[in-house]
Amino acid sequence: MTKIVEAAIEADPKLPVIRITRDFDATPEQLFRAHTDPELFVRWNGPDSLQNKIDYWDARTGGSWRYVSSRGTEEHAFHGSFHEVRPDLIVQTFTWEGQPDGVALETLRFEDLGGGRTRLHAQSLVDSFESRDAWLRSGMEVGVNEGYARLEEMARAGSL
Amino acid sequence: MTKIVEAAIEADPKLPVIRITRDFDATPEQLFRAHTDPELFVRWNGPDSLQNKIDYWDARTGGSWRYVSSRGTEEHAFHGSFHEVRPDLIVQTFTWEGQPDGVALETLRFEDLGGGRTRLHAQSLVDSFESRDAWLRSGMEVGVNEGYARLEEMARAGSL
Repeated sequence: MTKIVEAAIEADPKLPVIRITRDFDATPEQLFRAHTDPELFVRWNGPDSLQNKIDYWDARTGGSWRYVSSRGTEEHAFHGSFHEVRPDLIVQTFTWEGQPDGVALETLRFEDLGGGRTRLHAQSLVDSFESRDAWLRSGMEVGVNEGYARLEEMARAGSL
Repeated sequence: MTKIVEAAIEADPKLPVIRITRDFDATPEQLFRAHTDPELFVRWNGPDSLQNKIDYWDARTGGSWRYVSSRGTEEHAFHGSFHEVRPDLIVQTFTWEGQPDGVALETLRFEDLGGGRTRLHAQSLVDSFESRDAWLRSGMEVGVNEGYARLEEMARAGSL
């Protein structure tokens, strides 16, 4: 029986921050690999309707990344830097090239819940409430939930 | 006659942001070089009492940097990523390694005022008001003002 798991997506009332929390049937090591290995990342990053292709990807402190998501002739490109890459913490920047002056600072933490389970704490910080609220209205929850469901499937299938 | 120029250092009332504004007797190209050429950067970055030494520095979109500032046996190391490097805009991350989990997202814009003058707009964004206010209480204005005075001297001396 597959249970539907939705990530908690929360807007901070006082900071231009989005926080996403989700528990996974996966170890911290598996979550870390899913976020740093480009071959794995392209397979789960949502939404399901888009195909991801890596342009460049160097997942170490001081490295950088770029990928293109497409659906037919529709293309969206994203790029950023890996500010910090540690087993329990990834800090990275994120720009959707459709808005090249926009940038978010993302923090991912992997909390070991024991028994092969992990709580992901993802935080996205931008410099205005307007930008933050535009992300929340963009339908991002579809990509987040479809992507994380695929990530968890990959963990269960032993692919991570 | 040398006039004393102080940078305006402002805390946003609603965002965990510090904004620094200062006019320079320098062109946008000179300010860009002062912030991207490591040989120039170590000569002006304040305060005067610290010596800067580059560890690594790659000032392009997706590059990264690290330097160490010292005074006798006292050492402070800093590192970050260059998220975006364009002639009129630099977006970078910044961590003081004394607080390795702290990170700021910095945006520098060079506004051409004409006649060889430029307004620098620097913004620093963190994820809490406590961290922002700790920076403001740290005596940062000394380093900011001493550093920018040296930068402007270098521009006047034709060193940029």
